[in-house]
Amino acid sequence: MIQPPKGTRDFLPEEMAKKQHVLDIARKVFERFGFEPLDTPAIESWELLSKKGGGGEDIKKEIYYFRDKGDREIGLRFDLTAPLARVMAANPQIPKPFKRYQMGPAWRYDNPQAGRFREFWQADADIVGSDKMDCEAECLAVAATTLEALGFKDFAIRLNNRKILNGIIEFLKIPKEKVTDVFRSLDKLEKTGPAETLKEIERAGVRGKKAKDLLEMIKARGSPETILKREKKRLEGYSSAKEGLEELEQIVSKCKVYGIARKVIIDLSLVRGLEYYTGPVFEISVRTKKEIGSIAGGGRYDNLIETYGGRWTPAVGISLGVERICEIMEAEGMFRPSVSSQVFVAVADEKVRENALGITQMLRIGGLNAQMDLTGRSLKKQLEYADKSRIPFVLFVGDQELRKGKFTLKDMAKKKQGEFPLEKIIRVLGGSGK
Amino acid sequence: MIQPPKGTRDFLPEEMAKKQHVLDIARKVFERFGFEPLDTPAIESWELLSKKGGGGEDIKKEIYYFRDKGDREIGLRFDLTAPLARVMAANPQIPKPFKRYQMGPAWRYDNPQAGRFREFWQADADIVGSDKMDCEAECLAVAATTLEALGFKDFAIRLNNRKILNGIIEFLKIPKEKVTDVFRSLDKLEKTGPAETLKEIERAGVRGKKAKDLLEMIKARGSPETILKREKKRLEGYSSAKEGLEELEQIVSKCKVYGIARKVIIDLSLVRGLEYYTGPVFEISVRTKKEIGSIAGGGRYDNLIETYGGRWTPAVGISLGVERICEIMEAEGMFRPSVSSQVFVAVADEKVRENALGITQMLRIGGLNAQMDLTGRSLKKQLEYADKSRIPFVLFVGDQELRKGKFTLKDMAKKKQGEFPLEKIIRVLGGSGK
Repeated sequence: MIQPPKGTRDFLPEEMAKKQHVLDIARKVFERFGFEPLDTPAIESWELLSKKGGGGEDIKKEIYYFRDKGDREIGLRFDLTAPLARVMAANPQIPKPFKRYQMGPAWRYDNPQAGRFREFWQADADIVGSDKMDCEAECLAVAATTLEALGFKDFAIRLNNRKILNGIIEFLKIPKEKVTDVFRSLDKLEKTGPAETLKEIERAGVRGKKAKDLLEMIKARGSPETILKREKKRLEGYSSAKEGLEELEQIVSKCKVYGIARKVIIDLSLVRGLEYYTGPVFEISVRTKKEIGSIAGGGRYDNLIETYGGRWTPAVGISLGVERICEIMEAEGMFRPSVSSQVFVAVADEKVRENALGITQMLRIGGLNAQMDLTGRSLKKQLEYADKSRIPFVLFVGDQELRKGKFTLKDMAKKKQGEFPLEKIIRVLGGSGK
Repeated sequence: MIQPPKGTRDFLPEEMAKKQHVLDIARKVFERFGFEPLDTPAIESWELLSKKGGGGEDIKKEIYYFRDKGDREIGLRFDLTAPLARVMAANPQIPKPFKRYQMGPAWRYDNPQAGRFREFWQADADIVGSDKMDCEAECLAVAATTLEALGFKDFAIRLNNRKILNGIIEFLKIPKEKVTDVFRSLDKLEKTGPAETLKEIERAGVRGKKAKDLLEMIKARGSPETILKREKKRLEGYSSAKEGLEELEQIVSKCKVYGIARKVIIDLSLVRGLEYYTGPVFEISVRTKKEIGSIAGGGRYDNLIETYGGRWTPAVGISLGVERICEIMEAEGMFRPSVSSQVFVAVADEKVRENALGITQMLRIGGLNAQMDLTGRSLKKQLEYADKSRIPFVLFVGDQELRKGKFTLKDMAKKKQGEFPLEKIIRVLGGSGK
């Protein structure tokens, strides 16, 4: 049997309805916050994908890269941020700040592990054209509101600032050329713990007391009230760190207005891998029965649009991992049981097939999702089909029913049935006439 | 400036909102008719894409084909039907008839012409697992209902049956090996007229009187009442043609119940290129000021799922061309003017910024799509921004307004303004509290 390519998968209706539910809620919240939709192609030029400061040449190993028939180098997009930066660079006429959302697949040629796929959906909200911390808070609020609307209660917003990290690096006099590797090692703290992180720091070329001091400093983690004040004292005189801490204070202050400040944790070990972040970075994670799962992340990337050939334009954004969210919702039983259609019209007698079709159309016009038998098989088989297809009600159409103008409606779960006129059935099943 | 790859394009918010509107309506109607959502990966194995009877080896010239890093041959899907057939072959447990819809991009490596792109969206509805003509009628009805819901009035449903064409081929004793080429030539009648089609037929190897007879027969075009009866008489004794005509009679009879029979035209020249069709084929076109545009098409493909390794399973489906529909709606002025957010909150004084954010959140909680200033610029510039961003109302928040508990609301189009309490503003702008 032919399978989908390695690392990809199909979403059969029950799964797709869940994913669609997440996308629908995200879209509604994004629009409520004034974000506008954007769509860009799945394929992008290698020039875009490989830009230094964006993907970089190294990205070739991690993406779907190929040549088209015109021998142009192209690839599948690895995120939705690089295309946004391209769009902004190429369309300076767009009024700013530009609040855009985009939902769609991206592709990475990872080795597929449990829960990681090579094709995955992201739902992104970005604000382009303002350097105010209001934008960071808005990104956090739109993500938090989406998660709350989906039913998440227990999630944490980890917040850091690349500027603070730069200040620490400066404070410890760590040489510039080691910074990228050191940053990469810090990111491991949450996952692997302090002992492993210390080893990573040493591997990155920072040894002895300096490594221990670095670990000690980035281990700072807690509520904004405790961390921000303490670090401001410690890092006084390091202008980058001070600026970074003040920015976080501003974000936290706005988060209070949004009612999400209690969820914010300052975590100086948060780096987020991407090279292009220039200021605040953040990550949202949920604690489940099994693990702590990261479901959203983002940050400020003030230089990326200039990198793609545009004018220097500040920008910040957040990305929700759609499949990660679905998996956790599934594991935690957060999805409501899905139905396909609301009602199935069973044809009791082939002679009334066209009448049954007329009835089905009435139900649809009445605002119900309805289907009818398309096979001519026995009533028993029709009922089995409705059951297997997760359709909660069956309406029977036969000669007698048509003459009486009343139809038997069966509640498949309760295994109860009654006879009603069509208008009543439409009303009872929640049809609206729309 | 970096551009999107040749043959692809970006959808900026105004364009994307239009495309989204078409997709939203299609989805709503599809679900009303009892179709369930499916999603499949953008990439498929070359084994799937090249299957004889599906894409075929020749498809390589027309698609994005490449090798992944594991040297697997893969490509971007060229339609949504082949993936459906793969899913059905691999998932025999799915209850049948399976009514699925899928909306998403497909890719073809065509030479981009006016209005044709290498990445294009389709919205497909298919019914798998029944050979009854009820399914054809249902596909036509779901497409027609979608088009009507989008505002289309003047569209025609052209209907033919591959079985009739086979009967004509039999009647004229045209050799089997010429059939594919002859079929391909017939498809041109609508576009290029009879003279050119005759040449095409002759080029396909059918000459003289036979070519003229063929052209004469397939020129039959008109209402079901006139064409079906006449052709039944003419093709009596040719069992394939007779069967095909009877199937069309059944479809037309169901179309009457759906109220779409007046739109049906029997057109014996309609072939639709794809090799895999086995029975009825159809195409929906609209007459615009400029041209007749095909916006949907489909047919029955009873052997395709078996081709992909499944059990023999009859199937029929229709595909809407999303961008074609958008273009025609745009050209005909069928889209309502789009707004981004409903209201913009202008900050009159930096000191009240956090109060303004609170007000903005109240508007959002009240069910309005709202945004506020994120820049700290002058009121004049904020108003210009709201105007350029297609936001119809501006609410001003200043010190005085907060003290009074009344806010100035400006109607940007009418250039009128008044002072109201917040609850009234939410009500007037149509907020619902949802």
